Amino acid sequence: MADKYERIMELAKRRGFIWPSAEIYGGVRGFIDFGPLGTVLKHNIEEKWRRFFIHRHSDFIVEIETPIIMPAKVFEASGHLKHFTDYIVECTSCHRKFRADHLVASSTDIVEVESLSIEDLNRIIKDREVRCPECGGILDEVKTFNLLFKTTIGPYSENVGYSRPEAAQGMFLAFKRVYESMRSKLPLGIAQIGRVMRNEISPRQGPIRLREFTIMEIELFFDPEQSSCPLFDNVKNISLSIIPEDKVRKGLLKPISITAKKAVEEGYIVNEWQAYFMVLGKIFMESLGIPSEMQIFIDKPREERAHYSAQTFDQVVKLERWGYVEVAGYSYRTDYDLSRHMKFSGVNLRVYRQLDKKILKEKVTVKPNMKILGPKFKSKVRELLTSLNYESLASELLSKGFVEVAGYKLSKDDFIISREKLEVGGIHFLPHVVEPSFGSDRVTYTVLEYAFHEKDGRIILKLPRDIAPIQVSVFPLVSKDGLPELATKIYRLLLEAGLRVEYDESGSIGRRYVRADEIGVPIAVTVDYDSLRDGSVTLRDRDTWRQVRIKISDLKERLLKYFEGSLCFEELGTPFKGR
Amino acid sequence: MADKYERIMELAKRRGFIWPSAEIYGGVRGFIDFGPLGTVLKHNIEEKWRRFFIHRHSDFIVEIETPIIMPAKVFEASGHLKHFTDYIVECTSCHRKFRADHLVASSTDIVEVESLSIEDLNRIIKDREVRCPECGGILDEVKTFNLLFKTTIGPYSENVGYSRPEAAQGMFLAFKRVYESMRSKLPLGIAQIGRVMRNEISPRQGPIRLREFTIMEIELFFDPEQSSCPLFDNVKNISLSIIPEDKVRKGLLKPISITAKKAVEEGYIVNEWQAYFMVLGKIFMESLGIPSEMQIFIDKPREERAHYSAQTFDQVVKLERWGYVEVAGYSYRTDYDLSRHMKFSGVNLRVYRQLDKKILKEKVTVKPNMKILGPKFKSKVRELLTSLNYESLASELLSKGFVEVAGYKLSKDDFIISREKLEVGGIHFLPHVVEPSFGSDRVTYTVLEYAFHEKDGRIILKLPRDIAPIQVSVFPLVSKDGLPELATKIYRLLLEAGLRVEYDESGSIGRRYVRADEIGVPIAVTVDYDSLRDGSVTLRDRDTWRQVRIKISDLKERLLKYFEGSLCFEELGTPFKGR
Repeated sequence: MADKYERIMELAKRRGFIWPSAEIYGGVRGFIDFGPLGTVLKHNIEEKWRRFFIHRHSDFIVEIETPIIMPAKVFEASGHLKHFTDYIVECTSCHRKFRADHLVASSTDIVEVESLSIEDLNRIIKDREVRCPECGGILDEVKTFNLLFKTTIGPYSENVGYSRPEAAQGMFLAFKRVYESMRSKLPLGIAQIGRVMRNEISPRQGPIRLREFTIMEIELFFDPEQSSCPLFDNVKNISLSIIPEDKVRKGLLKPISITAKKAVEEGYIVNEWQAYFMVLGKIFMESLGIPSEMQIFIDKPREERAHYSAQTFDQVVKLERWGYVEVAGYSYRTDYDLSRHMKFSGVNLRVYRQLDKKILKEKVTVKPNMKILGPKFKSKVRELLTSLNYESLASELLSKGFVEVAGYKLSKDDFIISREKLEVGGIHFLPHVVEPSFGSDRVTYTVLEYAFHEKDGRIILKLPRDIAPIQVSVFPLVSKDGLPELATKIYRLLLEAGLRVEYDESGSIGRRYVRADEIGVPIAVTVDYDSLRDGSVTLRDRDTWRQVRIKISDLKERLLKYFEGSLCFEELGTPFKGR
Repeated sequence: MADKYERIMELAKRRGFIWPSAEIYGGVRGFIDFGPLGTVLKHNIEEKWRRFFIHRHSDFIVEIETPIIMPAKVFEASGHLKHFTDYIVECTSCHRKFRADHLVASSTDIVEVESLSIEDLNRIIKDREVRCPECGGILDEVKTFNLLFKTTIGPYSENVGYSRPEAAQGMFLAFKRVYESMRSKLPLGIAQIGRVMRNEISPRQGPIRLREFTIMEIELFFDPEQSSCPLFDNVKNISLSIIPEDKVRKGLLKPISITAKKAVEEGYIVNEWQAYFMVLGKIFMESLGIPSEMQIFIDKPREERAHYSAQTFDQVVKLERWGYVEVAGYSYRTDYDLSRHMKFSGVNLRVYRQLDKKILKEKVTVKPNMKILGPKFKSKVRELLTSLNYESLASELLSKGFVEVAGYKLSKDDFIISREKLEVGGIHFLPHVVEPSFGSDRVTYTVLEYAFHEKDGRIILKLPRDIAPIQVSVFPLVSKDGLPELATKIYRLLLEAGLRVEYDESGSIGRRYVRADEIGVPIAVTVDYDSLRDGSVTLRDRDTWRQVRIKISDLKERLLKYFEGSLCFEELGTPFKGR
């Protein structure tokens, strides 16, 4: 029998939730289309995320939109050109290429492959005599493969650009602008929902590992000296299932249940903002139909974390085929990104905090010593001086004892360093960042899997009512005698009220209920002969198949309340025994 | 004095609507960021487009989401690899590159450059001695430059992919799937809102000519034998300002005003679907604040149309700096795209129409003649037979007299062609397509420009109330004596009702009105000392600066009605004379 994933995908393709992209050309791995129902479902999840994470916090979290294609310099600064890589190995005989760690996992008994270095992988391939799984050929040396999609901006081939692998960088680049337009206050959250691209070596897991997907991300900027979250009180007593880093390292994968407050106090979670968003993420996923007991937060060991992160929790959800799969990540990015962009752009990204009382601070000034540099570099001195990064000069010189510029190494002696004590009323600093980041496509698939139920050989998609792509089906009992006309009127009425409605008159009423149940329509409205006489219709509940009778004149208002969540099904009308 | 565009961009950057991307790295031409207010404005415009074009037609128009990066084959089939080009010319001395037609326009008195061929451009550059505008150097031959952003999918360099320049192709590829999930009915509209990329040679017009932008597009598939639009009656008497193709050709740019019905009857507009969407587009832009008299529909002459189009109307709107600028295009793409994808994929994309009564039809069957092919090709015959495109074999063979396959030319004699008369109950055909397509970024800028007003040296952004990024500002008159507490309560109340609200207590009340007016907040709520006593607040109208007084207990409900459009400002409360 097909496994649950296959049964879901059969439904998804047939009814228009998800299918492989470019199918008529044989498909391209790692790319999927969302069909009519899938698009509305995904869109509803994204809008709900917006309400949950942005609108509710609209006094300090704002959304922006930045481009997907960005110049190479951005990813040089962000570290992605160097670190955003996987290990790849090529067969010397058939020249197929494989992700080296996955190949080792599938060809040996080694399970934990994520933290293996290139040397480890080469050694294992040699020692265990791992061969090409396709042709049995000998494998070449393991290499690194950068996962950024590369392109050229404009007509000059040297203007390299990349598609962003995360929405974050656009938010770091715009930080100063947003900060100023938001009247220079911290904490400040910058959010973005948008497409990102990751050129995976050989993605295989359908809608789970994609080369292009939608990310929903917040960069929450805060003053590291004032890192408490003013909203933490609202969530501090809510429990999370977490697996701390030391247990992950030892392979102990049993989570502990701990309140957000305790998790911060005991150092499991690095700060309140990180914990705040983790709780919010748990409640968000719960509201999409994923029970909290199926959600775990795993603290990623240092060697598995992204290069920018001082702590990352993966929020994972159990899926039938793939086990625990990450639906969101929570990273403490410190001031890594801002400091890198400050260094690479030469633009000061620090913000200012006024102090309660003035303090004495040592100010270091560094000036080129022309008496030394002049004779030493002669005509080249001008180029040298314009190439210096004055923003980081003092700190680099003092920490390393030298700076490198235009190929030359300059020491402290090449500069005049003066120190003075100043009374200052405030300090300049780089904000720190906590980042919750959700994969919208994965979340959408996960929601489908948790909603997917079977009963007597039929499918019932128990989607939460607020995100169901179609909220109401309107059926005339038969397609004659004026019933279609009345049903169409009701369809229009509900459509204009802003509900997502479908009208269906073909096939038996039972057959139509089946069709509505399998795409998760919460309420079916049936117009029968009595409706013509008494102005009432029957409502049927998708999950219980119970029915109530309601006046058409009450229909719009009560259904709106039902979908807002302020009425339950039984409150919609009077109990009714169906045929 | 700065022109209107510069004044708008000053506001846009300062308050967070729009700014250049990657500014800290000096910016990249053709890329912009939407800041916090710009993102909400753009999002609101997109949601409104969704309601206008999709939700209202949800019985036959559905939305899908497909990837940005697509394999090369798709664009080979769609014709973009060949036709989606501009002419480029390089300076032989400084090696700068220019868009050839723009260079001719700026260096000569020739205005109409869009239709010039590569030969025309080379001749003009030679005859008029056009030189490099940067260094005066001699220009090289004009070449074609493909505007697709190129990349590689996965680790094999031969797997070329491109970023889509329009959302359309994803919808053509998915047509069959969507058609089947929508129960195989025509007309069928497939819509998509998403990012597209066009690698312009040297974009210069700020937010108008972008290399990456958001498109809002519908492919409306219909049976060419039944091309009438069932909703046409609703719009047929609405007038459009159009400039027909023959007038455009003669340079006569005075539009004629004509009803949609007459425009179709007299052949100006090719069919009812095209006219229906043009009217809808006009009303849509009007609802965003662009008066209909500032909108013109220009019929593009054949030589300026995209390769796939049998008729394209550009909907243009007058902008201060750039003159008439296209905000939407309406193209009759016929069955061009589906027929090309059918040919290139070998997958039958035809749909079926049942006929009222059976007809006799000749069926042609073509089989390889093995007696001839066998001896002729020997061991290669197998490869030959599997490479044949059986889908198009008969039609190609009969029309051209031969087919080419795997480098060989096969004639009619290599096949056995049999014909028989069959009684058939239906016919198979390719649907035709009409495509309305909007650039969301341009529309957003256009809306900003039309909303931009100045009065006594102040800016008032008269955005339509339903799309204003912030709908309500809540101000305590002073920031003490319990006023901030009450104002915060009101802020929360309105926020939870789903309104987009801001709270502001800093600076004088007059200063706060100025700040709210310039970002287009329709209503300001002021909490004063009387509010503490009588439970009322003052509402101020952005456009008239008039004020009314309203009970806090009525506030939420009435404001919701005001923003739905069912109450006007004066109906919100009782007239009130401000301080």
